[in-house]
Amino acid sequence: MARGNITIKELAKELNLSTAAVSKALRDSHEISAATKKRVMAVAEKLNYIPNPYAGSLRHRKSKTIAVVLPEVADSFFSLAINGIESVAIEKGYHVLLYLTHESILREEAICKDLASGRVDGVLLSISSETDGIDHIRALFNRDMPIVFFDRICEEIETAKITTNDYESGYKAAEHLIECGCKRVAFFSISNSLQINNKRKQGCLQACRDHGVEDGFSHLLLSNRVSEINYKQIKAALLKPDRPDGIVASVEKFTTDIYLSCRELGLDIPADVKVVSFSNLASVSILDPSLTTITQPAFEMGQLASSILIKSIEQKSFTLKDENIVIPSTLAVRASTASRFKSI
Amino acid sequence: MARGNITIKELAKELNLSTAAVSKALRDSHEISAATKKRVMAVAEKLNYIPNPYAGSLRHRKSKTIAVVLPEVADSFFSLAINGIESVAIEKGYHVLLYLTHESILREEAICKDLASGRVDGVLLSISSETDGIDHIRALFNRDMPIVFFDRICEEIETAKITTNDYESGYKAAEHLIECGCKRVAFFSISNSLQINNKRKQGCLQACRDHGVEDGFSHLLLSNRVSEINYKQIKAALLKPDRPDGIVASVEKFTTDIYLSCRELGLDIPADVKVVSFSNLASVSILDPSLTTITQPAFEMGQLASSILIKSIEQKSFTLKDENIVIPSTLAVRASTASRFKSI
Repeated sequence: MARGNITIKELAKELNLSTAAVSKALRDSHEISAATKKRVMAVAEKLNYIPNPYAGSLRHRKSKTIAVVLPEVADSFFSLAINGIESVAIEKGYHVLLYLTHESILREEAICKDLASGRVDGVLLSISSETDGIDHIRALFNRDMPIVFFDRICEEIETAKITTNDYESGYKAAEHLIECGCKRVAFFSISNSLQINNKRKQGCLQACRDHGVEDGFSHLLLSNRVSEINYKQIKAALLKPDRPDGIVASVEKFTTDIYLSCRELGLDIPADVKVVSFSNLASVSILDPSLTTITQPAFEMGQLASSILIKSIEQKSFTLKDENIVIPSTLAVRASTASRFKSI
Repeated sequence: MARGNITIKELAKELNLSTAAVSKALRDSHEISAATKKRVMAVAEKLNYIPNPYAGSLRHRKSKTIAVVLPEVADSFFSLAINGIESVAIEKGYHVLLYLTHESILREEAICKDLASGRVDGVLLSISSETDGIDHIRALFNRDMPIVFFDRICEEIETAKITTNDYESGYKAAEHLIECGCKRVAFFSISNSLQINNKRKQGCLQACRDHGVEDGFSHLLLSNRVSEINYKQIKAALLKPDRPDGIVASVEKFTTDIYLSCRELGLDIPADVKVVSFSNLASVSILDPSLTTITQPAFEMGQLASSILIKSIEQKSFTLKDENIVIPSTLAVRASTASRFKSI
């Protein structure tokens, strides 16, 4: 019942070998004969010897661990992305350290500083909605820490970035609203500094321009943390005389507040206000009304980010290029954007 | 741009001290004077010395890391629980390794075996729905690895277990359905071996007994992984002549399939079938109809599990007792269980 394993010294004594020889045998060194290796393995197993992973780390300078730094997990995009990341990590024998920034740049800075200590072999990063400076990421990157961005990327860091087609998705969402009769499209943002948010917004705006409803376009920056504040801001926007008749929500968590605000104000979705949201929730089809979504390839993005990162850790010949890899999203039309003719 | 930090040897040379003295100063040892400590810290900072966490681990036998072993993250209970776990871990300076079993006992066994190597200081565990033997957990526990269970516990392991009041919650859910007019209550299970599932089921059954509708009670074991199979099984159950008029769903992911099955079969919720589900999703209030839930204290359970585990790691005088700590859930009544008089 002792905590520790038996040590390599005790194992060596039992085998009547030097610790160096046992260590080499356990690492399958060519300096040790097959017969000795077999004997070492048998005794190690019998005595339940388990190598100390940290001792291994010191020697190999590999922890077989990657860090995943995310804003949050209580969001279907990120939870599916974690599944994708983990599915690759487990296959390749890697461990996943999870860090949540809760959308705070201060937390993100503290995490990056800590990761510089060499606890992990590489980092998967999706930045916080507050992140507008990149010194903390640059500092980590400059220590030759392999970093791969996914979803919420830093354009300035010269490494691989996995995103979906955010501009096109924003364009498609707004164009769909316009085709369903909307004249005043609003984009609900989670951040003014996040590149993906701004690309989605730019896509919306361009669709409005291309369809001659640019004047009706508006933009609402919502607090990303407190639902009560979002709820008040959304209600205020919907009470204006020139209130939006179509909304593109940049993240799924705005949906509940949009629906509840409309309900309280007596606005019918989709007759009075049509709604499209970026979301991967399974329950969108049973919402009242069912929600039209931009469905992102969350699992695939996590998988790809994870494989590229681990490849760069394991293969010396493979270095992370400064490149954008884009996996497209799809528009799934449901009742929240049904056109006037159908819904009235 | 060199990867490594400056070493402690180089730092010692710069300071004209022995490495042992520098090491002691960095660890705030009482053997070193305050003036020397200050000087060491200043130079360490100037030269950007970052201690190697693994070297520290070898010395202290502490990795300042805990493992969280969960069935999945794409579920509001577990994602909120992770937030709770992480909030405590970050405050105490701990790192969180995340492992997902995806409801597979084989994965859980492999993870437990790996964790025996001493990579972490303690383990938070919520077992898979397949887990019916506990040898793999017992083996880890017998190595003196501190383990705390939360939600899906192993009764047999003599350690702290954090749950909600599953039996009472099941009872309350079924009683609510009966009070709303249901005569044939069905419990939809995720597993026959999970203790919390069976407690919820037993609670339902007892409520049916106490209210004289025991004969109408039924139980449906759903596949826990494939939505398509669940969907077919649920439809089959709802097509029977003695189909349930009230359903208690043990996990939120069954909800979408229950709603869609009812829709396809032309059964109205709540007029024909009333539904209560264990769920922590924010969107339950905008479902069609809004969903009556048993809301679990997910964040608090994660927080408590994490604090107890870290306390047992840090304080030698505190040992994990064989005890059940219960944080109660609440029933939140919404439209999916509206009584006949109101809904028709």
